[in-house]
Amino acid sequence: MTHPSAYDRLRQRFERMATIHEASAMLGWDASAMMPAGGGQARGDQLAVLASLAHGLLIEPQVSDDLQEAEQGKPQLDVWQATNLKLMRQAHIRAVALPPDLVEAQARANSACEKIWRQARQTSDFALVRPALQEVVKLVREQAQALGEALSLAPHDALMDGFQPGIYSADVTPVFNAYKTYLKEALPRAEALQARRPAPVMPQGPFPTALQETLCRSLSQRAGLEADHSRLDRSTHPFCGGIPTDVRITTRYDEANFAKSLLGVMHETGHALYERGLPTAYARQPVGYAAGMAAHESQSLIIEMQACRSNAYLGWLGQELHSTFKGDAAPYQASNLGRLWRRIERGFIRVDADEMTYPAHVIMRFELEQALISGDLQVADLPAAWNEALHALLGITPPDDAHGVLQDIHWYDGLFGYFPSYTLGAMAAAQLMAAARRQVSGLDAALGQGDFGPLLGWLRTNVHEKGSLLGFNDLMRQATGQPLDAAYFEAHLDARYLADKMA
Amino acid sequence: MTHPSAYDRLRQRFERMATIHEASAMLGWDASAMMPAGGGQARGDQLAVLASLAHGLLIEPQVSDDLQEAEQGKPQLDVWQATNLKLMRQAHIRAVALPPDLVEAQARANSACEKIWRQARQTSDFALVRPALQEVVKLVREQAQALGEALSLAPHDALMDGFQPGIYSADVTPVFNAYKTYLKEALPRAEALQARRPAPVMPQGPFPTALQETLCRSLSQRAGLEADHSRLDRSTHPFCGGIPTDVRITTRYDEANFAKSLLGVMHETGHALYERGLPTAYARQPVGYAAGMAAHESQSLIIEMQACRSNAYLGWLGQELHSTFKGDAAPYQASNLGRLWRRIERGFIRVDADEMTYPAHVIMRFELEQALISGDLQVADLPAAWNEALHALLGITPPDDAHGVLQDIHWYDGLFGYFPSYTLGAMAAAQLMAAARRQVSGLDAALGQGDFGPLLGWLRTNVHEKGSLLGFNDLMRQATGQPLDAAYFEAHLDARYLADKMA
Repeated sequence: MTHPSAYDRLRQRFERMATIHEASAMLGWDASAMMPAGGGQARGDQLAVLASLAHGLLIEPQVSDDLQEAEQGKPQLDVWQATNLKLMRQAHIRAVALPPDLVEAQARANSACEKIWRQARQTSDFALVRPALQEVVKLVREQAQALGEALSLAPHDALMDGFQPGIYSADVTPVFNAYKTYLKEALPRAEALQARRPAPVMPQGPFPTALQETLCRSLSQRAGLEADHSRLDRSTHPFCGGIPTDVRITTRYDEANFAKSLLGVMHETGHALYERGLPTAYARQPVGYAAGMAAHESQSLIIEMQACRSNAYLGWLGQELHSTFKGDAAPYQASNLGRLWRRIERGFIRVDADEMTYPAHVIMRFELEQALISGDLQVADLPAAWNEALHALLGITPPDDAHGVLQDIHWYDGLFGYFPSYTLGAMAAAQLMAAARRQVSGLDAALGQGDFGPLLGWLRTNVHEKGSLLGFNDLMRQATGQPLDAAYFEAHLDARYLADKMA
Repeated sequence: MTHPSAYDRLRQRFERMATIHEASAMLGWDASAMMPAGGGQARGDQLAVLASLAHGLLIEPQVSDDLQEAEQGKPQLDVWQATNLKLMRQAHIRAVALPPDLVEAQARANSACEKIWRQARQTSDFALVRPALQEVVKLVREQAQALGEALSLAPHDALMDGFQPGIYSADVTPVFNAYKTYLKEALPRAEALQARRPAPVMPQGPFPTALQETLCRSLSQRAGLEADHSRLDRSTHPFCGGIPTDVRITTRYDEANFAKSLLGVMHETGHALYERGLPTAYARQPVGYAAGMAAHESQSLIIEMQACRSNAYLGWLGQELHSTFKGDAAPYQASNLGRLWRRIERGFIRVDADEMTYPAHVIMRFELEQALISGDLQVADLPAAWNEALHALLGITPPDDAHGVLQDIHWYDGLFGYFPSYTLGAMAAAQLMAAARRQVSGLDAALGQGDFGPLLGWLRTNVHEKGSLLGFNDLMRQATGQPLDAAYFEAHLDARYLADKMA
């Protein structure tokens, strides 16, 4: 037996760490989808111990030595291995960048703040959570500073890098500014056009939960998610969890409205298909994981927004729905489903927003959190700044903070730098769909038969199987011929919301 | 902050190990009750990594030093702590007793043999699995030898000690021999009496799965298992898993016969109630765990066999069943349920056996595995020895090896020393029930109202809350005034199967 190389030692170490993270992922799913309340305290301990074991493996002194030795032998590595090594180095830098005291203080502050936030949101009382949020922001600023120094990035960029590596303010700001200009002009036009169309008809329920569940499972599997590598369960907050060979998606059911669970499940199915398509040769290695949160969101949105809401698919889906739920056929006409599920509306709540106004919610959060991290904005001034920003973009003002600054968990849980991923994902989805349509003939014809095969095949080759080999921009460039360009998203919105005939 | 004592360091280490084992327990439950087949390979890796992390914590050199130091400071420990320390020492001896090569060879051999056994059982082909079983037995002999030396026990006793600490062949053999004598005389009498009674009437189904599930959940909760600390799900092989604050029990449903799931769930509920009642002050410490597998089995059987099949409970249960399933009331009469669920029959299959013949199945396995471990019996001669032993005890001969030596997974998975626990548990259950009836007035009257409160209260105080503070014999002595005595089990059988009027 030959002595393993430094790279091999690292590979084995990261595999072990990844296997621990897999255990945590399954336990996290269980906590949301299965666990009785009484198991919560022990579960917290289990997750903390697993996290500390994985972290311990990453900060052992041996890792530094192995990284250095492997980097010296880099010429012998192929491009996958070399990228893997680069990502291992990044992970190590992140792991050792933060003083343990700060990590612990953040864990405590985030958890405390998040608990108070739940109460504050319920009573729409920002003052209640303000001191806790001030503490969170204070610590996040320290975290951003330390990470930035370690990674040679500006503080807020260092936070963004943790979610979508390699994409920073300098990439995002021009794209977002261009979209603000687009929206100012497009939104009123879209609203005017929508007002001239017939009002959509709501299908009349009740839609029994069991029937919805069977339908969701069948549609998800029909889109390509294999039954023997996935589960669909229920949880208060729908998500896609688990691991690539055993993906766990969840949803919640409303017997008055099947669309929420159906479109939600297709969204999570997009995430799940990405996980299923990751390169198995690099499973449990940094290069084998998804390419970041914006990339991940592009895969959920290309299924939910691009494919499922396409005219072609709606035609097929309407018939499925009618044969499932029976009753009057009219609400299940593709044209009506389109009017129902592609409805523009200026609203206060991000998660309820349509695809045209959604980016406005993201952009204002992005700008506000940059100001919070830089210190240009103080927590005490946040609610007013929030309301001003929303008014500037959408011309509306929240009736209270529950419908404003208190609506999202992210900041109250110490999560800064995440928001851009949602909109970058939406834009990437439009660009990828356009490329897929150019390169794959019959893609929409297949969707018109409920067949995701051609689309999925293209995504497998051009996105999923790449893992983290390419940065987000290179991934887009190789798949579509261009780096991320908001023009595709705007063209998609134009066609869907501004064309005289329904796109 | 004072420097933690050696005992405190050990306490923290064992807590960490226990927390890892908790994660494994939840993942093990998931593998049986939830996981899609495609997740199996990754799950195996996750469990292996967690096991190796926990094992690693136990064999670190520091543990030896801490144990020695703590043992020198033992006078300062109270009886719980001192027992805890003693159990830590035992765990450490076991962990370091086996050469890593042997542990690995056993893991491989057991897993390979178990796979072949599934095939061999299906085709009733012992020759197919013989070589694999020979390898398993060869390695188990080595394991028993090494453990025996480390623990100063005879080889087979060292294996038994792993399941029910402190109970060895010298304890079990006289009890089992006495039972053989009892059975020879009692079984024909019970059969004759049974033949003179009316034949039981089977309730006519179908009994919808959903209805059975609701019923099982309700009966289990009514017996004291709290909904916010437990789940009931389905699996091919019913079991009780999870952790004390989050117990997961499973069952399977047969729409033609609700009794299997109902009595199975009550059996698992007994296990679950034990876990729920363990001393929380010593959670995650060796002294805080259940007192062994025989003790555990006594708790499942006192619920399933002693309480649920008592005349008092059957009276109440029959009415519940009839109001759940409707239809003809006659099959739900207590007397009919008694004749149905307390039916003696000489059979080939252990898991289907009634409570009078069940010990015969255990006793023959106990004797055969002792001979296998000592080398007095070779694997090639096992099928013939099996058939002879069964014939000697029950006067019947299996039609093939699938109904004989191939029926149980235990040996093919490397599990030797476990079988006695089933019958020790049954005997302990009878003895505990007799003591509870003596000490708690109105116990049967409460069962007649479906109320397990008085019984459970007594078990909590006298068994559950003791954790592993006492050895099995001392536990029995403190709870019942005597060490384990088969006379209580025989008296129970006499009353139930040999009394002229139904007991």
